Amino acid sequence: MSTVQRIQFYTAPYSPYSHRVRLALDEAGADYLAYEFPNTRTKPDWYYQINPRGRIPSIAYGGPDVPPEEPSPESAKLTESLALIEFIADIFPDSGLLPKDPILRAKARGFIQIYDSWIQPPYKSAFFLGEGTEPILQAIEKLQAALPPTGFAIGQYSIADIAVAPFFVRMLLFLRHGIGAYSQADGDRLREAFASEKFARFRQYVQDLESRPSFQKNWDEAQQVELWKSPPKFRKE
Amino acid sequence: MSTVQRIQFYTAPYSPYSHRVRLALDEAGADYLAYEFPNTRTKPDWYYQINPRGRIPSIAYGGPDVPPEEPSPESAKLTESLALIEFIADIFPDSGLLPKDPILRAKARGFIQIYDSWIQPPYKSAFFLGEGTEPILQAIEKLQAALPPTGFAIGQYSIADIAVAPFFVRMLLFLRHGIGAYSQADGDRLREAFASEKFARFRQYVQDLESRPSFQKNWDEAQQVELWKSPPKFRKE
Ligand SMILES: N[C@@H](CCC(=O)N[C@@H](CS)C(=O)NCC(=O)O)C(=O)O
Ligand SMILES: N[C@@H](CCC(=O)N[C@@H](CS)C(=O)NCC(=O)O)C(=O)O
Repeated sequence: MSTVQRIQFYTAPYSPYSHRVRLALDEAGADYLAYEFPNTRTKPDWYYQINPRGRIPSIAYGGPDVPPEEPSPESAKLTESLALIEFIADIFPDSGLLPKDPILRAKARGFIQIYDSWIQPPYKSAFFLGEGTEPILQAIEKLQAALPPTGFAIGQYSIADIAVAPFFVRMLLFLRHGIGAYSQADGDRLREAFASEKFARFRQYVQDLESRPSFQKNWDEAQQVELWKSPPKFRKE
Repeated sequence: MSTVQRIQFYTAPYSPYSHRVRLALDEAGADYLAYEFPNTRTKPDWYYQINPRGRIPSIAYGGPDVPPEEPSPESAKLTESLALIEFIADIFPDSGLLPKDPILRAKARGFIQIYDSWIQPPYKSAFFLGEGTEPILQAIEKLQAALPPTGFAIGQYSIADIAVAPFFVRMLLFLRHGIGAYSQADGDRLREAFASEKFARFRQYVQDLESRPSFQKNWDEAQQVELWKSPPKFRKE
């Protein structure tokens, strides 16, 4: 086993994609340096050395001990949240972030893909573009059907849960606080649906995700409400 | 190392997502049974036992030797193309589908995510919805910038190349044959761009993807043209 190198993590409190990586690092008990961007979408020029596409999260891995704003050419520049949580599972093989059984690993990754390809687009449509609630409710029903009767996505906690937790916990928070581009009527429809028996398993799952100690460790509900109330997060891109 | 079990693969010739899995199986030199659906989007009832969302590709892994239309409850039902190519890399660790170095693994997975989150949506917009060409050209420029000067996505051939090959090779095929929802003018713009010096690296990359023996093994250009010329593939969903 090679030893784990220096981890410089670039993140921002509002960012659900970055939150995935934070959860994985904390679950693994990793030592890491976090650089937090303010609540803005513009990035300073130096950051493009780390991610040429300018997005967060990213990790500069290895290399000398430099200030976060002066990345060393010697570190590996790693981007894309799903690649990063797999990376953390790879360098911390005993963290349990991914089980050893290839079938369970495939189930965990399949669950993530169900989220990314089926839930993410209608989530955006319903919450950020105000385009109605039917598609997101249908998608969550599909994902709910993929959950076991109790416990996490594949039973034990894994990267599958890490990938979805930042989004689902925020989704229910947004609804409680009326944050989003949906109409009053659509908001009511969503709140009613998620309070119903039909979505009881989903509700329990999101509660389990939120109760996880690694989630609680870095979750400040009042701060999130503040960050997401401001309109820039909801611009149509 | 546990031994590899029975692999029943569900696919269709037109399907680029399924094509990913076929490439991974062939690269790994896997023994597998392929069940090919006809060129239609509707699936028989029995298939929902394998994928409750009705999509291809999927794999029924292990269990007794049953006809593909009568799946055994004893096999593991695995879905989602990206989870499946990772699964094949997991059960064939010596295939080289994923390198051992965690940094290179993260680069391979990052490349796949760049494809899935940056290229796929504007690809769909340009080719299937006829919504213009600027976004897809910008996205491919970004992906091109992530390629090394020569060779595959991370140098050696890996799941990164497998994830994108079915889509990029089809993209250039569609353009050559005028297949797609784009206007005449947009088609000309795309053809001109991809023939230009600016996209020389991308062009070379797609040629390398197409030349790979595992790609050639199952590629019938005339058949693809036939399959994709028919309108159902381009319906807006
Ligand atoms: N596919 C990327 C998405 C990352 C992403 O979109 N991050 C957002 C924050 S959650 C961002 O950087 N936004 C800033 C911007 O739009 O420039 C990933 O999974 O890491
Ligand atoms: N996210 C899925 C997408 C699979 C998918 O959309 N497959 C298409 C064929 S390429 C399909 O099954 N279409 C049939 C349908 O729409 O019902 C994956 O990566 O496997």
